[in-house]
Amino acid sequence: MTTANDDDARHKAKMANRKAIQDKEVAAKTIEKGLLIVHTGKGKGKSTAAFGLMMRALGRGFRCGVVQFGKGAWQSGERTAAEKFGDQVQWHTLGEGFTWETQDRARDVAAAEKAWAATERLMADPAIRFIVLDELNIALRYDHLDIAKVVAALKARRHDQHIVVTGRNARQEMLDAADLVTEMTPVKHHFAAGVKAQEGIEF
Amino acid sequence: MTTANDDDARHKAKMANRKAIQDKEVAAKTIEKGLLIVHTGKGKGKSTAAFGLMMRALGRGFRCGVVQFGKGAWQSGERTAAEKFGDQVQWHTLGEGFTWETQDRARDVAAAEKAWAATERLMADPAIRFIVLDELNIALRYDHLDIAKVVAALKARRHDQHIVVTGRNARQEMLDAADLVTEMTPVKHHFAAGVKAQEGIEF
Repeated sequence: MTTANDDDARHKAKMANRKAIQDKEVAAKTIEKGLLIVHTGKGKGKSTAAFGLMMRALGRGFRCGVVQFGKGAWQSGERTAAEKFGDQVQWHTLGEGFTWETQDRARDVAAAEKAWAATERLMADPAIRFIVLDELNIALRYDHLDIAKVVAALKARRHDQHIVVTGRNARQEMLDAADLVTEMTPVKHHFAAGVKAQEGIEF
Repeated sequence: MTTANDDDARHKAKMANRKAIQDKEVAAKTIEKGLLIVHTGKGKGKSTAAFGLMMRALGRGFRCGVVQFGKGAWQSGERTAAEKFGDQVQWHTLGEGFTWETQDRARDVAAAEKAWAATERLMADPAIRFIVLDELNIALRYDHLDIAKVVAALKARRHDQHIVVTGRNARQEMLDAADLVTEMTPVKHHFAAGVKAQEGIEF
């Protein structure tokens, strides 16, 4: 028979051990660098988590840039929130919408190139510490931009600049170059139950 | 031999078809409801995407509430960003840190119960349209709260109130009750390469 005291003691020993392992792991990490972060997968939350990271970075005083390679999931709510930080954020909405909306490949390529030029300016700006390249993976998947050129530029980022790339179907070259890759996987979606897009959630 | 014109025409037809399917799908969704959204999985971005959703909701003028059931991943950057919205956000940091840090189950249970009481107050407040219950899944996994009681209350939420629940190892009862579940799956992590937690990203 075990008593409540035995249970408590066992729980305490187990948790102390887990904490010791975690503390040791944290102490072993010593490299400071600008991270290349990729959010991919078919699920929700890729752009939203990038936006959340940017709000955190803004809260810490970083100057940030956003380039939207597609019409994307970022709309008025995000813009209004970001505007609270005034000129601490530079926002470039250059995408023309997804290709199945424009139905014009030449226009998509031109838009992607314009968005990439804005990216290069942000990367070269010493004041910018955090950049979101929203839906860049989609532009690369459709070959609207040269993958080798883009990945080489991202790899050459400064050590004090973090970059977050979003979009489903990230190319292998992008995954190889990234420090941190998270896949957002849809498990259940209310659209399947006939529920429409809800204000404050989807737009 | 195909010409560039043939290719363009084929691309245009394919994309027009895809857009027609998508438009029809969107039109079929007609139900308005407050959503229960779950972010789970071992990957990054669960709390960050919830925070991003909240910033979007704030940007649309919703009053929001946050209850942190653990010490969690939300720190000074998030607080600073949320403070830009003044009393539009109510923030409750009641968790005592993860259990392997406190090593005291009775204290964890008391903290979880206090956090749940704050949740019930937010859910009953007609002004609150959006609530984040950060790391609630962890409190449920450790049985710090009664799963049946929590899920029944969440299911009984108002139709004009969205709730986002985060934390790995979401219980099956929570998944069953949710409208939208996304699993964040780690694909690659810079900690494995010896890179330490970076300001503006992890804290």
